[in-house]
Amino acid sequence: MNQLMVRSVFRHAITGSKYSRYISSAAASPLSAVAVVTSSDEAVVVRGQGLGFLGGAPWSWRTMSTAAEPEARKVEKESSTAVPGKKKNEESGEVVVSSYWGISRPKITREDGTEWPWNCFMPWETYQSDLSIDLKKHHVPKNFTDKFAYRTVKLLRIPTDIFFQRRYGCRAMMLETVAAVPGMVGGMLLHLRSLRKFQQSGGWIKALLEEAENERMHLMTMVELVKPKWYERLLVLTVQGVFFNSFFVLYLLSPKLAHRIVGYLEEEAIHSYTEYLQDIDSGAIENVPAPAIAIDYWRLPKDATLKDVITVVRADEAHHRDVNHFASDLHFQGKELREAPAPLSYH
Amino acid sequence: MNQLMVRSVFRHAITGSKYSRYISSAAASPLSAVAVVTSSDEAVVVRGQGLGFLGGAPWSWRTMSTAAEPEARKVEKESSTAVPGKKKNEESGEVVVSSYWGISRPKITREDGTEWPWNCFMPWETYQSDLSIDLKKHHVPKNFTDKFAYRTVKLLRIPTDIFFQRRYGCRAMMLETVAAVPGMVGGMLLHLRSLRKFQQSGGWIKALLEEAENERMHLMTMVELVKPKWYERLLVLTVQGVFFNSFFVLYLLSPKLAHRIVGYLEEEAIHSYTEYLQDIDSGAIENVPAPAIAIDYWRLPKDATLKDVITVVRADEAHHRDVNHFASDLHFQGKELREAPAPLSYH
Repeated sequence: MNQLMVRSVFRHAITGSKYSRYISSAAASPLSAVAVVTSSDEAVVVRGQGLGFLGGAPWSWRTMSTAAEPEARKVEKESSTAVPGKKKNEESGEVVVSSYWGISRPKITREDGTEWPWNCFMPWETYQSDLSIDLKKHHVPKNFTDKFAYRTVKLLRIPTDIFFQRRYGCRAMMLETVAAVPGMVGGMLLHLRSLRKFQQSGGWIKALLEEAENERMHLMTMVELVKPKWYERLLVLTVQGVFFNSFFVLYLLSPKLAHRIVGYLEEEAIHSYTEYLQDIDSGAIENVPAPAIAIDYWRLPKDATLKDVITVVRADEAHHRDVNHFASDLHFQGKELREAPAPLSYH
Repeated sequence: MNQLMVRSVFRHAITGSKYSRYISSAAASPLSAVAVVTSSDEAVVVRGQGLGFLGGAPWSWRTMSTAAEPEARKVEKESSTAVPGKKKNEESGEVVVSSYWGISRPKITREDGTEWPWNCFMPWETYQSDLSIDLKKHHVPKNFTDKFAYRTVKLLRIPTDIFFQRRYGCRAMMLETVAAVPGMVGGMLLHLRSLRKFQQSGGWIKALLEEAENERMHLMTMVELVKPKWYERLLVLTVQGVFFNSFFVLYLLSPKLAHRIVGYLEEEAIHSYTEYLQDIDSGAIENVPAPAIAIDYWRLPKDATLKDVITVVRADEAHHRDVNHFASDLHFQGKELREAPAPLSYH
């Protein structure tokens, strides 16, 4: 097992996947790792200082899917005579379902032995935000499409300002429910286009879906800080219904305009988060401790605060700004996105 | 640099990300790795035996985004006076756009020094298929929903059989354009639901999107083997238009039924690919060399053939069968998907 682990370790050296994360976090803390096998067929526990988690999940999927075969066949045999569904409900449901289909969550624990609490993201999807990004970068509107996009965003800001005023926590929470839509719509439409045209996407599907996922994680973080009221939930339903469909149509008609609008929306988001930070500094907003989910997702120190969270969220928005303006620029040059490199894992 | 690499190596040991892949491929071949820095600010080249690639991309994104700042500011200054778009077009387009937004594809090469040819997937997204999965596993219809799903799929098979008969290459290509839709629809709807409900998804969004991406890679592979004719392209347009919208509505109305139908579709896919393999064995279909994209994506030996490709594709379908029947079973138990572990990286 240990030999396999050591090998898998070197595999990672070769794939070089997600170097940035490990270089940046390695720089943040010294490191020592010990491999321990906790159970014969499931989890691998590796303790490491300066890193609040460990994993082994996909390895366990593989183990499970093979380990589950005999059991699976057993249940299958039963299922051809009896009714497997009923059987499942008689016994303790999920367990049997899992073994029946060979799917089960592997044991993933933090270095302190506590279980990894999140199903919505795994340790290897976490990252340290790149705070060195230029927050002031701005795309100067240079033609009708740009100006239209810019004015639209500025116009949308007015009712938003009136509605939320300086309640930045609530504002951020509500806006992230919208911010997570464009990436998903764009990614989906590029996916369908790739299928229709029998063409590769150049990685842009994944890049846009990553953006959507990242924005959704912002929401999951803000929800820990601000509980939405019933009328806010109602508002989200309406806004999503309208925005999803409008953006869907817009992206079909003009991805150039769609990406430009998102680029400008991100510029506004950076602006809002900067004001948020100013209110935290001035004491107008209490600098509460960071939610656990944020500490795990952005690999923040255990004593991180709201200010740290908003800072990394703002850096994320700056990256999305770059990606979307870049995408729009490509369309302006008469290129398709797939002709240019997709910014994968660009946080 | 080497020190950083070693650290990043151990980082990977701790995150344990994608163990399966590296264990399985490590088992396949002995390993020796050497790290070489090719250029001062971009690519990391790591040579490794038994592994046809190397990476370092996200690390380079980070490098780029910081390295690009001065240039970015320069261009930005110009942009506030001149028009950046025009500038871009005057100079050699993309390069300036890239440096302007700090986005550029890092140098990624294989062990033999040849450049990594794919933008649509990266070395660390490749995997070795788990061929040990039970291909015969079948969910016995046990209630109206199951029976309806089963009959529907059997019914859909009739026109498909008539249209394609034994032209399995063409058949596979056409069907993958449809097979890649449900995962995307399900993932998107769970994403939107997660936003509306301010609830986590338990990782199911990613799991379903991974399924869609995997099916799309099947298509990208088949296209290398069979060139679609104009009327087939036309058929795909129509079928996608109908199927996407139908499945969209179906998933809104009953995800339970939707996942069950996909589960049965995958069972049929396994059946078709088995017949495909029989025709290859009997010599009715020539066992041509595997396309380059398939060799890289599934880490097949350089001399892999069509038979090897169809075998791993069939194994993928078996995994999707399990995931979708599992999802449907959860709904039958009155649970939400997010209550159960999502099968991430489950191939």
